[in-house]
Amino acid sequence: MAVVIDIDDPDDPRVADFRDLSAADRRPDRPGGRGLVLAEGVVVVQRMLTSRFPPFALFGVDRRFAQLADDLAGVDVPCYRASAEVMAEVVGFHLNRGVLAAARRPAELDPAGLLATARTVAVLEGVNDHENIGSIFRNAAGLGADAILFGDRCADPLYRRAVRVSMGHVLRVPFAQLPTWPDSLELLRDNGFRIIALTPDPAAATLAAALTGERVALLLGAEGPGLTAAAMTASDVRARIPMSAGTDSLNVATAAAMAFYERVRAS
Amino acid sequence: MAVVIDIDDPDDPRVADFRDLSAADRRPDRPGGRGLVLAEGVVVVQRMLTSRFPPFALFGVDRRFAQLADDLAGVDVPCYRASAEVMAEVVGFHLNRGVLAAARRPAELDPAGLLATARTVAVLEGVNDHENIGSIFRNAAGLGADAILFGDRCADPLYRRAVRVSMGHVLRVPFAQLPTWPDSLELLRDNGFRIIALTPDPAAATLAAALTGERVALLLGAEGPGLTAAAMTASDVRARIPMSAGTDSLNVATAAAMAFYERVRAS
Repeated sequence: MAVVIDIDDPDDPRVADFRDLSAADRRPDRPGGRGLVLAEGVVVVQRMLTSRFPPFALFGVDRRFAQLADDLAGVDVPCYRASAEVMAEVVGFHLNRGVLAAARRPAELDPAGLLATARTVAVLEGVNDHENIGSIFRNAAGLGADAILFGDRCADPLYRRAVRVSMGHVLRVPFAQLPTWPDSLELLRDNGFRIIALTPDPAAATLAAALTGERVALLLGAEGPGLTAAAMTASDVRARIPMSAGTDSLNVATAAAMAFYERVRAS
Repeated sequence: MAVVIDIDDPDDPRVADFRDLSAADRRPDRPGGRGLVLAEGVVVVQRMLTSRFPPFALFGVDRRFAQLADDLAGVDVPCYRASAEVMAEVVGFHLNRGVLAAARRPAELDPAGLLATARTVAVLEGVNDHENIGSIFRNAAGLGADAILFGDRCADPLYRRAVRVSMGHVLRVPFAQLPTWPDSLELLRDNGFRIIALTPDPAAATLAAALTGERVALLLGAEGPGLTAAAMTASDVRARIPMSAGTDSLNVATAAAMAFYERVRAS
């Protein structure tokens, strides 16, 4: 059973891990980073509790702990309870979701392990915006994609903003870093994946024509620059999102959703 | 030719329309609202210049006016030029896009006029988030949807944040307000549109099966509550986005993109 501990003093050392949160979710190797993974709000905390990121502590207002009572029944974790005012002083801003959970970063997953059972994966290159990363995970969860693989120069999926925008799905959809880029794409090919580079190029095949096969890896680049030539060359086929003339490319998370959708549209 | 006028004093009355912008894009009938439509950044200003929202004035830094020189060559509009510091004092915050254009709200479009030539339209109910509204317009532009119709309780598409998130496509994709809700859906039916209610309900037909016919109106509700019973009843058929168990519904703009995509996927 979770233990509830009341916190009245914003300087209480027991909530030190929740202090000045705007910096605390950075990677351990970055300035100010403590390498914590933070879940905000009841739904995301619930997802964290059943994920591979078990929280070591929770911090929240009474009403949110009441909502989480069933989820916390069998969990041995300290629940620091405070007023909204004390919470705001500790974390450094008013947190209107009213509850936080903090976990340490576990060891990273092995890409080969993820690929063994996956049918649809996304492989990201240069997607350096935390909101886009969060949205890609949310769309992957909603549309049944199995894993996300990180190539080169991507934003951290465990950054607080990414966790929030994903609605906690970065904690559920497995992800892994590819060791070398783009050479590691060979690992996917060895596992029977067809590697499909998404592009706005009108000369490419339609998504509908290209996304065939039992195992598909969808290669996605950042909005604007798109995929590098090296990544394009390492792919098996290029597929285009249908686009109207005179518009920008779609948001990368929307493009990913379109491809994930294409994989499940008839099911 | 646009006339360039240098502004050195943040209190200069000639830039009064750009003052305290965080309030100035509200509807005329709301507190602090002046009913202006504001474009931010070179690309969105370019789109405004060729839209049904011709700007009455621009305000920006020298570098941005240089980038817009060709676009402004034939346009008779005052261009107020200032330093980034003076601009920030006038608008009330640092504007990193460096250029603004302001237009007045024109008369609203008539829905019947839009429907005459449209093939795919979205009809929104209760979509009260400006980012979602902006993203729906961006996706409509990118995926070739012809118009957006507003049913009941939606956010203002001409709000500054919606214009920005849409990347200016609220200025290009035509939209109109339906006069009565949901009774005005009859107007769509009279024009030969099949009215398709999007839902996460697994008992509904797939999008792929439901989105047939020459003219399609896609009925979309807010995330969470979804469409009202009255809107559901007024539709011809219900279509579902494929969804995985245990996830939230997709973002409404992503659901719209999926439906727009389904209309053009084979083209």
